[in-house]
Amino acid sequence: MKKSLNYFFSRAKELKEKGEKVIGLTLTSPEFPPPPLRKRILKFYKKSFSYLPSGGDFKLRENLAKFYSKKWNAPLKKENTFVGSGGKEILFILLQLILKKGDEAIIISPYWPSYPQMIKFAQGKVKILKTSEKDSFYLDVEKLKKEISPSTKVLVVNTPCNPTGRVLKNEDVKFLSELSLKKNFILISDEVYEIYDYEKKYVSFLRYFHKNIFCVFSASKTFSLCGWRIGWGFGKETLISKMIDYQSNLTTSPSSLSQLVIRDFFEKPQEIGKYFEKTKKEAQKRRELAIKFLRKKRIKFVFPEGGIAIFMRIPLNFKNAFSFAQTLLEKEKVSVAPGEIFGQRFYIRLNLAVSTDALEEGLKRILKYY
Amino acid sequence: MKKSLNYFFSRAKELKEKGEKVIGLTLTSPEFPPPPLRKRILKFYKKSFSYLPSGGDFKLRENLAKFYSKKWNAPLKKENTFVGSGGKEILFILLQLILKKGDEAIIISPYWPSYPQMIKFAQGKVKILKTSEKDSFYLDVEKLKKEISPSTKVLVVNTPCNPTGRVLKNEDVKFLSELSLKKNFILISDEVYEIYDYEKKYVSFLRYFHKNIFCVFSASKTFSLCGWRIGWGFGKETLISKMIDYQSNLTTSPSSLSQLVIRDFFEKPQEIGKYFEKTKKEAQKRRELAIKFLRKKRIKFVFPEGGIAIFMRIPLNFKNAFSFAQTLLEKEKVSVAPGEIFGQRFYIRLNLAVSTDALEEGLKRILKYY
Repeated sequence: MKKSLNYFFSRAKELKEKGEKVIGLTLTSPEFPPPPLRKRILKFYKKSFSYLPSGGDFKLRENLAKFYSKKWNAPLKKENTFVGSGGKEILFILLQLILKKGDEAIIISPYWPSYPQMIKFAQGKVKILKTSEKDSFYLDVEKLKKEISPSTKVLVVNTPCNPTGRVLKNEDVKFLSELSLKKNFILISDEVYEIYDYEKKYVSFLRYFHKNIFCVFSASKTFSLCGWRIGWGFGKETLISKMIDYQSNLTTSPSSLSQLVIRDFFEKPQEIGKYFEKTKKEAQKRRELAIKFLRKKRIKFVFPEGGIAIFMRIPLNFKNAFSFAQTLLEKEKVSVAPGEIFGQRFYIRLNLAVSTDALEEGLKRILKYY
Repeated sequence: MKKSLNYFFSRAKELKEKGEKVIGLTLTSPEFPPPPLRKRILKFYKKSFSYLPSGGDFKLRENLAKFYSKKWNAPLKKENTFVGSGGKEILFILLQLILKKGDEAIIISPYWPSYPQMIKFAQGKVKILKTSEKDSFYLDVEKLKKEISPSTKVLVVNTPCNPTGRVLKNEDVKFLSELSLKKNFILISDEVYEIYDYEKKYVSFLRYFHKNIFCVFSASKTFSLCGWRIGWGFGKETLISKMIDYQSNLTTSPSSLSQLVIRDFFEKPQEIGKYFEKTKKEAQKRRELAIKFLRKKRIKFVFPEGGIAIFMRIPLNFKNAFSFAQTLLEKEKVSVAPGEIFGQRFYIRLNLAVSTDALEEGLKRILKYY
């Protein structure tokens, strides 16, 4: 059995169903309350029985374009906007359309594990640029520039980054945006953790939007609605129209009820703004809590500038993160994500976006091993 | 602009939003009432915020395996069961996993338009076996047998068939099931119209289930919940486990709320049975209505043994179905699916599963041209 995120998540679920008191910190699935749902669901569910158009409901796409145009001063229209079954489906379709066999796609390690898989699915060549522990996992954009070759068709960046919590600074965003035009590759920026920006550092690539930029967001992380399977992305019109064609033969369109309710959220941009602030504050509490615990025990971790995870060093007496994660799950009934999955075998990732009680209890069980 | 189903569907939606009284018969999206939802939604929506495991909720998979095992006397377990974002995602993943570049996949024309697209996405070679108007679009399985070559890795059949309404007879199902073992190809049977069987002819390939059989079903057609994006399929365990891995990098898992509510439907198999009977009767009314209209005008059509569509000849003064469908949409505001999409340019397909009023009005507008 391959030890994927799904393995640890499913195994934890299995143990839970057997009556074990499992603390699940595997997936970065925020457990914060979503915006008010009951009334909206009751209002829209009778309209949710039939398909919505591929690429997403027109009005939802319009609402999204308006919201992000205003937020980042970007020239986005409905025709630049695509709605998928989570950010994942969007990235999958994008890579299928952009990459031809043998085309190079650069990702940055530690990386979200679906990137290399999706690139392989599209028969592209995965090129990994490592960021290192000694540089605190910061990305060196000049070093990255040197890696770009004529066969580089795609660069995937992730800001705020999962699992490291690193956020690209404004000048790097600008630099990479210009580089993608100069060197003619598509820059895919995965920004699903947009609202979790603790150092006021995050800048979207939408601020420097042009034909080679594609940005991805999701209801999973933004509205704590992972199970609702909605993501959205912005790119050039011709690419969006190819994506719509592709999706019409893949999933047709995401869940209609999810789309209609989320469309309604975006009818009230001010309310959303307040909701984001409140949610970020909740996340920040967990982040402080985890930092306090780890500092007290003098455990090495990556200081999270953004996101909802913490990436921490495994104890010295474990040979790799897999074996540590396996021990934690089977002995301590706490499930985490081993770093091998992200290309870093001496770290584990914990989801912070759970109740403070669960986080404290989880940390206590983990810290016994240090 | 490529004239896809999505084109006709989206254009009709656009016209409707402009205030036109459009009759939409493009997609085979049943407009029958789904099973009772309100209470179920209110019961489950608070549990729908987080991800469910890839491949589907365990209990839902168990319920499905039990239901179909009993219905077709088949040895199905949870491990044979896969839940996807509609039947489409399941077929897509299957073909990606089974086909290698250049492998042959046989489909039968008239075909559902996503089959050839999905095979191309998987870099397979599409081989089309035509059924003809003069044979009333019946499939000749002996003729099909001769088309199987050593490079045939997949055969896709569809019973009840969309768009023709043809249903495979028991002996053909048995014959093809045995053939797939003998010739070692995977037989994918798309049976999403399972409940719409007007001549008591339909037999699932699950009755002859073995390692080379994969059957696909969907909530879209079975529960009139197209917008809920849930499908399920049954195949051998090793294939299902590869599909779960694939889905974990494509969409994670379908909408959690959809899964939880549909899981609840399958807790009460007897209620579902009654619901299916009632829904079939409603569909049968529409079918009789359409048949009466077309016979009265002596218009050629394929007598639908199953399914929720009717496939009818275009008028003689139109050169092809595209131009007829375009005229119907723009002049008469009735949207249909032109036969070119299914590989048959002298027919159009109408969705029957709308209100009887809409169907009558749609037929009246169409029949003016004959």
